[in-house]
Amino acid sequence: MKASELAGILGGVLEGEDVEIIACGGLEEARPGDLSFCKDTKHVKLVQATKASAVLLPPEWDRGAPCTVIRVSDPNRACMAAARLFAPPEPARAPGVHPMAVVAPTAKIGEGVHIGAFTVIEKGAEIGDGAVIEAQVFIGEGCKVGAKTHIYPQVTLREGTIIGKDCIIHCGVRLGGDGYGFNNGRREDGSVFIEKIPQLGIVEIGDGVEIGSNTTIDRARIGRTYIGPMTKIDNLVQIGHNVKVKGYSGLIAQSGVAGSTEIGYGCLIWAQAGVSGHIKIADGVQVGPQAGVSQSLDGSVRYVLGAPAESMRDFGARTLLPRTVAKLKADIKEVKARLK
Amino acid sequence: MKASELAGILGGVLEGEDVEIIACGGLEEARPGDLSFCKDTKHVKLVQATKASAVLLPPEWDRGAPCTVIRVSDPNRACMAAARLFAPPEPARAPGVHPMAVVAPTAKIGEGVHIGAFTVIEKGAEIGDGAVIEAQVFIGEGCKVGAKTHIYPQVTLREGTIIGKDCIIHCGVRLGGDGYGFNNGRREDGSVFIEKIPQLGIVEIGDGVEIGSNTTIDRARIGRTYIGPMTKIDNLVQIGHNVKVKGYSGLIAQSGVAGSTEIGYGCLIWAQAGVSGHIKIADGVQVGPQAGVSQSLDGSVRYVLGAPAESMRDFGARTLLPRTVAKLKADIKEVKARLK
Amino acid sequence: MKASELAGILGGVLEGEDVEIIACGGLEEARPGDLSFCKDTKHVKLVQATKASAVLLPPEWDRGAPCTVIRVSDPNRACMAAARLFAPPEPARAPGVHPMAVVAPTAKIGEGVHIGAFTVIEKGAEIGDGAVIEAQVFIGEGCKVGAKTHIYPQVTLREGTIIGKDCIIHCGVRLGGDGYGFNNGRREDGSVFIEKIPQLGIVEIGDGVEIGSNTTIDRARIGRTYIGPMTKIDNLVQIGHNVKVKGYSGLIAQSGVAGSTEIGYGCLIWAQAGVSGHIKIADGVQVGPQAGVSQSLDGSVRYVLGAPAESMRDFGARTLLPRTVAKLKADIKEVKARLK
Repeated sequence: MKASELAGILGGVLEGEDVEIIACGGLEEARPGDLSFCKDTKHVKLVQATKASAVLLPPEWDRGAPCTVIRVSDPNRACMAAARLFAPPEPARAPGVHPMAVVAPTAKIGEGVHIGAFTVIEKGAEIGDGAVIEAQVFIGEGCKVGAKTHIYPQVTLREGTIIGKDCIIHCGVRLGGDGYGFNNGRREDGSVFIEKIPQLGIVEIGDGVEIGSNTTIDRARIGRTYIGPMTKIDNLVQIGHNVKVKGYSGLIAQSGVAGSTEIGYGCLIWAQAGVSGHIKIADGVQVGPQAGVSQSLDGSVRYVLGAPAESMRDFGARTLLPRTVAKLKADIKEVKARLK
Repeated sequence: MKASELAGILGGVLEGEDVEIIACGGLEEARPGDLSFCKDTKHVKLVQATKASAVLLPPEWDRGAPCTVIRVSDPNRACMAAARLFAPPEPARAPGVHPMAVVAPTAKIGEGVHIGAFTVIEKGAEIGDGAVIEAQVFIGEGCKVGAKTHIYPQVTLREGTIIGKDCIIHCGVRLGGDGYGFNNGRREDGSVFIEKIPQLGIVEIGDGVEIGSNTTIDRARIGRTYIGPMTKIDNLVQIGHNVKVKGYSGLIAQSGVAGSTEIGYGCLIWAQAGVSGHIKIADGVQVGPQAGVSQSLDGSVRYVLGAPAESMRDFGARTLLPRTVAKLKADIKEVKARLK
Repeated sequence: MKASELAGILGGVLEGEDVEIIACGGLEEARPGDLSFCKDTKHVKLVQATKASAVLLPPEWDRGAPCTVIRVSDPNRACMAAARLFAPPEPARAPGVHPMAVVAPTAKIGEGVHIGAFTVIEKGAEIGDGAVIEAQVFIGEGCKVGAKTHIYPQVTLREGTIIGKDCIIHCGVRLGGDGYGFNNGRREDGSVFIEKIPQLGIVEIGDGVEIGSNTTIDRARIGRTYIGPMTKIDNLVQIGHNVKVKGYSGLIAQSGVAGSTEIGYGCLIWAQAGVSGHIKIADGVQVGPQAGVSQSLDGSVRYVLGAPAESMRDFGARTLLPRTVAKLKADIKEVKARLK
């Protein structure tokens, strides 16, 4: 598409050569043919070094550019709009059941549902209207998937799993696997035994939840593991049995929440953080990256870091300890010298 | 089911209204229609606030309840028994090979084996009597799966993998992927090369092992990566090539063990902990959550925490360092004041 | 194979009984029938305790062995050669499309390509000459897979993903899932909203890249997430949207790189380490196991450890803090005593 045409669509003003644009990209990664954007004079150097063929800049920008410029009031938003133009359309998932899917006769499939190749839907499962179940998915007995929920390829839902409407479940997600529970001990003869505790509950996912690739959420021992509405879970997250996430929370990549813990509304668990079992995190609390929380957080501290987790202030002081100690060392040396 | 009927089955005594019970759940998550349980007067408030329709309580309980009560000698055990009554039966996996499975003619399938839809079993593989291989599983050439082992959907076993009997392998487990091994260096002309080291060994899993969803265990470079009998592995765990886990150990979610390390009998590696390569963890040692172990542990310390890992006592002292240092600071201030 | 025959093949000299050898293994794990090896007199005890039937030893070894010995100039290399003899041949993946695969008519399949059972290849996808796409793989619309690339079972490539040539993609890898991006805020009426930011970009993987089991790499918000040539990624690694890994780097198991970060050439990110978003790691920098990097690293420090990440020297000093503080405490006690 010509830059002039793009400027017209985006409501911007073209300056410079009317180049051909074929894609969008950040200032640093852009290649010739790309449109990029900058909203901030902080990034003057990046603009000057970009290999993009055109760049979206705000009206007040006066630092020049090495390529064609399209002036728009909101470069960030304009670039998203342009990206939508260049992105291939999302793959169409037309209603219908692929002939190579295996759907149990007793499964209830709603109106306008897409079911992909090599997908298995077992008996008694219910798929809501307009849901998309892509290829190679496994949906176990008695599962319920809400209307308009999109399940990407190679997801598994063990028996009894419930998913609300308008959810997005990415590739490789595992819902309803057995929770980790064993009784250990010694028999009268002194030999060790390890005995599995049956995991009889289910996983229930609320409306509007998104779950990232290869994340695992275990079924409850008794009752249900619950992920409340609008919770957004990233990739490779682990959620143990009987965990309750009330809703509107985020769990970032590779974080983990152990069994029976409750995460309040509007919490954010950052990447690689770990939350122990059988505790409560109050509404709105954030657990920083790689933090380890082993005791309930009542919300009096809004953001915790470190392991054991503490306030940012305490974590900052701990980080500075070597410096503090070095100063003390010098002080003592001085005191000793004076004493001589 | 009526509460009175349930009381009869559980050998308990009904007090209050003969309500209808449809499920089980913890005190806090229970909804009307649920049976819950409490064994301990510590949780009086939870009992008082529960929305369960009935609660299992021990004979000596004298704090009342907001709902029907069933008195039993062991509420925990009784609730598990009740949960079994309400849980839908486990999906039946009748013996037989699904017509949409691809099983090599040279594969040896035992008696009473179930093989699900879209599963691939390659040549020379052997499946023991009574094993359940669910849908969409991949079992590579020459693999051996022991009797009564249950493999859930979408597991992959690369060629040569051996699994014992009575194992449970959850969805998305990857056994026998190549270990991570490369030779790096510079050629005579100064250019960099990175060369793959062939991973020629296998993975061998002992009897009674359980492996959680999306866990990965790599094949050996030479010989075998070995997971000994009765080891219980949680979700998203990584086990490197040539690791040896002797047996009867637990590895909790998102922990990792690097190549060629040996984990003794009866060890417990807690969540998100990491164990370096080429070391030994003695029998019975526990590695705490998020700990990082880079040197062999001979068992003289039974539980380690932190990174680098240390005893709980040392870890505790380290945790208290800011306080200790603050006290020293005050001491020095006082000394200085006195010196003036 | 007889040890004498093996000695002939390996160019070694046999000492002792001409035993039958059936496999290879490390000194400690070897069983009767195995050939093992030792290159270093450090491991004398392991040689003496091995259960191997034969052991490869260097010419200068004078510490004996409890079994047959084959003397070779380079025991390590000789054992790899022997392991190749005993390893079953890699499963043959003959050219051709399995009748139970679903390949879109508009997909372009190169010469000599293998496509396994239950694999889905969507419209417009291109598979290069000699590529191996194993069973149960999902390749979305418009993906490109380079020549001789090997994709193991149960990998998913979301639409538009590009993979170079000579790559190895292990089981369960997820390429092109949506990046984690949401706008949060409050509406005028005070209610909370969480709005998905469309993820319109792609994932592009360079030539010679290897990606371990169950690793996840997200598609870009705009533009591309890029993994440069010869990068070697281990299992269960998470790479966020718009990350750029320039090339020739290693990312070890369970490490994670957050969105828009750039990893230079020849970097090594060790196991369970985390790198924050929107920063740059200079060429050749190593991030130690479990380290947490939240600020750009310019290469002035070559190896960082800890969280926040610091130099090995600083990390070492921090590790020793309890000792340092104990000494200060003693010093102050002494000073106080003198003051009395």
